[in-house]
Amino acid sequence: MQESLSSPAGLPDNGEPVGVNATVHEPISADGVPELGRRYEVPARQGRAVRLARGQVIRIINTHGSQVCDTWAFKADDLSEFMSMEHARAYIDRIIPKPGDPLATNRRRPIMTLLQDTSPGVHDTLMAACDAYRYRNLGVQHYHDNCADNMRLALKAIGLRSREVPQPLNLWMNIPVGADHGVQWLAPVSKAGDYVTLRAEMDCVVVMSACPQDIIPINDNRPVEVHFVVEAGA
Amino acid sequence: MQESLSSPAGLPDNGEPVGVNATVHEPISADGVPELGRRYEVPARQGRAVRLARGQVIRIINTHGSQVCDTWAFKADDLSEFMSMEHARAYIDRIIPKPGDPLATNRRRPIMTLLQDTSPGVHDTLMAACDAYRYRNLGVQHYHDNCADNMRLALKAIGLRSREVPQPLNLWMNIPVGADHGVQWLAPVSKAGDYVTLRAEMDCVVVMSACPQDIIPINDNRPVEVHFVVEAGA
Repeated sequence: MQESLSSPAGLPDNGEPVGVNATVHEPISADGVPELGRRYEVPARQGRAVRLARGQVIRIINTHGSQVCDTWAFKADDLSEFMSMEHARAYIDRIIPKPGDPLATNRRRPIMTLLQDTSPGVHDTLMAACDAYRYRNLGVQHYHDNCADNMRLALKAIGLRSREVPQPLNLWMNIPVGADHGVQWLAPVSKAGDYVTLRAEMDCVVVMSACPQDIIPINDNRPVEVHFVVEAGA
Repeated sequence: MQESLSSPAGLPDNGEPVGVNATVHEPISADGVPELGRRYEVPARQGRAVRLARGQVIRIINTHGSQVCDTWAFKADDLSEFMSMEHARAYIDRIIPKPGDPLATNRRRPIMTLLQDTSPGVHDTLMAACDAYRYRNLGVQHYHDNCADNMRLALKAIGLRSREVPQPLNLWMNIPVGADHGVQWLAPVSKAGDYVTLRAEMDCVVVMSACPQDIIPINDNRPVEVHFVVEAGA
């Protein structure tokens, strides 16, 4: 990919990933439907997509405590409706959701609800998923795994495609906002085994990427795997 | 539009506006090219699009001081690249730009630079443009002018169309973020005649909407007009 990365204009913008990793070959199932109660891995630097029926609950586990998990949710039968942080923030009047908060779509209705959070509740809704442009700007000369491609690849692995890469819910990403409006990029404050649970408020496809960022310290400089389990719900 | 507004699923998502106002009939010129130095009005509750050549500077004037102006910028020859707040925040490590800050696109390069700001610098990058869904959720039963449609209509008025409504730079919108991560929706702190100047870093189309929000106090409960002037630049 090195040639195309050398020119910003050379990067496509048609919903196709810029590069490839194992994500595209390793869906949890052909159509993304999970086995309820089974613990699935999102390997380090990769992504996975999973279908949730309305009412089902996904538990996303920060296995090592130090890992950011970029998380998206798309309406199952219309991927042009998706969890949208710029609408979600306005819907709950907060920049970080807390247990009990609905997570709104770009049509301003809940697609999931954050039920539980065993971590200190430090997550991020402000920063775009890392992408090829991000690593180019950070001085990386070769193709670098990135969350935007992981999302595209994870969807592709179950036969889906989104026309855009929405701003994700960056679970455990620690981006404090100062009184001067400046932000910092810090390591997570969560501990090994911390988890969040999210209930689907409509049939949806959840995509997770174990963020491969290893240039700045948001993953404590060592991208690792996370896990998830889908449960039937109450 | 009342029928379609009664059902969330009834709203289109194809880049077409949900409703119509005079914006679509009153472009500043057929192709959006401005007369340099001329003072143009963005009427209350409407939007306007204007083309800027690289190096030109747009002065956006808060004529009454109390008005929010949702602002977008699209690359002139490829509207799929646009000023993107989730990328812009990461590019400058701030949630509100200050004079001298570049404003990045979804491909993480500057499309404009904020040059001057005579106001106290209170703007918003966090909240989605108001839209038909927003007013429905606020209890409005009929069609309400909204910034998302104003953007679509202003582009349509000069023969353009964007596939999405990006998160805008909400000039003068006063959304303080508390230490508890909660946000408030307050009236602007700018004064009559305050302005910002923005320099185009590439040929682009700038869209402005004089926000019609009159249900919550972000426009001091009286949406009014703003003005803009395009200058040749240094």
